[in-house]
Amino acid sequence: MASEKVYDCIIIGAGLSGLVAARNLYRNGSDILVLEAQDRIGGRMVGKSLPSGQWIDQGGQWVGPTQDRFLNLLNEYKVKRFPTPSTGLKVLVFDGKRFEFDGFFQGHYEGEVPGVSKEEWLDATEAWAKFKKLSDELPEGHPFSGDKIEDLDSDTLERWIKDNTKTKFGHWYFSYMCRAVGFSGPSEPKEVSLLHALWGEKIASQSENPEAELLHGGAGQLPEKIASEFSSKIKINEPVHTISYGNGKVEVISQVSSYKTKYVIIAMPPHLAGHILYQPSLPALREQLTQRIPMGTCAKVLVSYKSPFWRKKGLAGIAIGNNKWVELCADSSDPETGVGVIAAFVAGDRYRKWQTMSESQRRDAVISDLKIYFGDEAGSYETFDEVNWPTNPWTGGGYTCFMPPGVWSSMGQALSSSIGPIYWAGTEMSDRWPGFFEGAIRTGEAAASDVMKLLE
Amino acid sequence: MASEKVYDCIIIGAGLSGLVAARNLYRNGSDILVLEAQDRIGGRMVGKSLPSGQWIDQGGQWVGPTQDRFLNLLNEYKVKRFPTPSTGLKVLVFDGKRFEFDGFFQGHYEGEVPGVSKEEWLDATEAWAKFKKLSDELPEGHPFSGDKIEDLDSDTLERWIKDNTKTKFGHWYFSYMCRAVGFSGPSEPKEVSLLHALWGEKIASQSENPEAELLHGGAGQLPEKIASEFSSKIKINEPVHTISYGNGKVEVISQVSSYKTKYVIIAMPPHLAGHILYQPSLPALREQLTQRIPMGTCAKVLVSYKSPFWRKKGLAGIAIGNNKWVELCADSSDPETGVGVIAAFVAGDRYRKWQTMSESQRRDAVISDLKIYFGDEAGSYETFDEVNWPTNPWTGGGYTCFMPPGVWSSMGQALSSSIGPIYWAGTEMSDRWPGFFEGAIRTGEAAASDVMKLLE
Repeated sequence: MASEKVYDCIIIGAGLSGLVAARNLYRNGSDILVLEAQDRIGGRMVGKSLPSGQWIDQGGQWVGPTQDRFLNLLNEYKVKRFPTPSTGLKVLVFDGKRFEFDGFFQGHYEGEVPGVSKEEWLDATEAWAKFKKLSDELPEGHPFSGDKIEDLDSDTLERWIKDNTKTKFGHWYFSYMCRAVGFSGPSEPKEVSLLHALWGEKIASQSENPEAELLHGGAGQLPEKIASEFSSKIKINEPVHTISYGNGKVEVISQVSSYKTKYVIIAMPPHLAGHILYQPSLPALREQLTQRIPMGTCAKVLVSYKSPFWRKKGLAGIAIGNNKWVELCADSSDPETGVGVIAAFVAGDRYRKWQTMSESQRRDAVISDLKIYFGDEAGSYETFDEVNWPTNPWTGGGYTCFMPPGVWSSMGQALSSSIGPIYWAGTEMSDRWPGFFEGAIRTGEAAASDVMKLLE
Repeated sequence: MASEKVYDCIIIGAGLSGLVAARNLYRNGSDILVLEAQDRIGGRMVGKSLPSGQWIDQGGQWVGPTQDRFLNLLNEYKVKRFPTPSTGLKVLVFDGKRFEFDGFFQGHYEGEVPGVSKEEWLDATEAWAKFKKLSDELPEGHPFSGDKIEDLDSDTLERWIKDNTKTKFGHWYFSYMCRAVGFSGPSEPKEVSLLHALWGEKIASQSENPEAELLHGGAGQLPEKIASEFSSKIKINEPVHTISYGNGKVEVISQVSSYKTKYVIIAMPPHLAGHILYQPSLPALREQLTQRIPMGTCAKVLVSYKSPFWRKKGLAGIAIGNNKWVELCADSSDPETGVGVIAAFVAGDRYRKWQTMSESQRRDAVISDLKIYFGDEAGSYETFDEVNWPTNPWTGGGYTCFMPPGVWSSMGQALSSSIGPIYWAGTEMSDRWPGFFEGAIRTGEAAASDVMKLLE
């Protein structure tokens, strides 16, 4: 089955990063091949059409004003954006008490303060100021060297929260940020390095408003658009299990065939890149790293309604709180269709409990929380779509990977360093907006550019 | 290539645990097949003969008095034991000062106190008493539930050391235990859960003297002995990439062929078990776990000499200290051969720096430290064998896996729970002596016993 042909570059993984790398190389005249393990391209950029005509995004969906590369891509493919619906009051539920307020907080806060006690609010926001200061002081780039790095990397975020907050609300404020929103994960605060959480806030901060806009038709339309000019170069259903390299040759062996190439770009989450057998073995630092870099724990649930019923009640469709299952949900309704869509997230230990239940119990659990946030009308949904990223073996979780303590300071440099003819891409490798489409594009572009220089 | 035959049980991995499981099933009359990825059986039980006639063990080598199953196995195969050489003074090197003393410490201490200051010694030993008390209070079995579990699992060991020691020596005392000796790892204190370190001390304590004896001929002779009665059932060079299961059938697909079986025992380190594609996906808890359970960072170096020269100097051949590369070495000389053998360990961040150097630099680095411990004669070695476990893709590190913070308390139950027809074995799964041969045998026996009951 093996061919004697030698490609210029094989790209493994047809998520956004791999597609961008492949497209750029193809446009440059390189002889490429894209191998994708799944039966579809797109990775975490994947959509679905509902019977109502509304689209939903099962993976990422938003774009923000400082995500240049993604904005460029959207312009190139003429995908139109619209402001994320946010008019109206936000909802906070804390320990069973429900507040509607004309403000918001995702770490930094805006507008009116929710109805928690002054002591609770000051506790959270004063600790946030401390956290932000520590975060601002980190050096540029991946945080694997520098004065305080090892020290910050020796604690969990949970330890820092315990040492720096006094109230249950203050504790939850950070836990929620880590578990549901980001800090580049998400993760439980007990499992993530303090350094990683600080870094996540520095390079992908909510204060830059990364969820400012949504896309008419959804992000899921993009993979086919990007792939259209080189679709004959893509093979799906071809998991790669072995890469042999040395003496200027690379052999890539999939479950279907084997291929020869000059260079290879591996555009996969790092733990999955670690599943491939490399001959010879990769340097120990890299092998050790890929054992220590788990994906975040998060399922996305998309619930659609005839219309955005919450707006009649003066609500924005954005709600947060320490409910039993859903700590964050957001209005994802496209004004062109008139359909109401709520995107809800079940993350961390909540997810781990939730996934032990039956499908109908999981649905009831989410709907029950949506009723608490938005009222009983939340029970009258049209469609319910659960996207269980942690059980997808070719992704392994969502939104992105995170670093447990000790990993950045001992082996962070191995995250993106190329090894001989092997280059890495994927949003996890980015030092700006990792876990976002922006990070996927940046690393895909960079890997393609590195390989192009070598092919010249 | 696929056969229609249906095995009773396929065992994946021919390390000690897989071999014991296979042997017990075979003796029980089960129709078995063993698939091994490497070109040899034995896993981390592997030896080598030196030109001098002396054996060395590249993996584990010792046995202790409370390791019942391993002692039984040694008796069954008539492998004779001898006391680990320890007569003479031990050496401690701390911050460049060298002490010879008639005592020892591996957490608990025995005999004479080394020449560090009284303040330093009290600091270390008082903190050890605290640590030991916390360890003793843990519940039996894998530590994933109980009162204090989540709290202990939210900190790194490094945080605990900083909070509980005042001197540099006190800090090193624990770091050394974690990095070079065990706590079920080894690991750097910054990367391991406090809970895991405490648990490691509880279920595999140095106070039980697990390195009390060595084996004439070495542990590496055992895999062939165990396999001899069913060697036709073992296939080497067959990495398994996919397991499909459901409706009472299991299909195991290797890079060479595919096989059908009623049950499967996966006897591999957990992170490697996670490299296999399962169809359908395993429960999320298991998939999440295998992303978060790295192998320890340790290389073993075996240096042989014409004779155990250190004994003429009154030294035991056992040395510890915060030298640049080697923090622990032990006399592994078999009295029957008269050859001197030192086993030295390069672990944690020391290993990670060491592995970036050339082969000759790595050798010089180790020998330079041995000279500090035992004198210039250490430079006149006969053979030098470096065993770089972290770069072995079918092991991924040594001695065993460890848990970063948050893993035990959120998903520890997934470590050994069987899933449908899939059973787990391997020393990492054991709740007693994990990382030792004893743990490998225990989990191999238990998995075979579980499957036998189902086959009845």
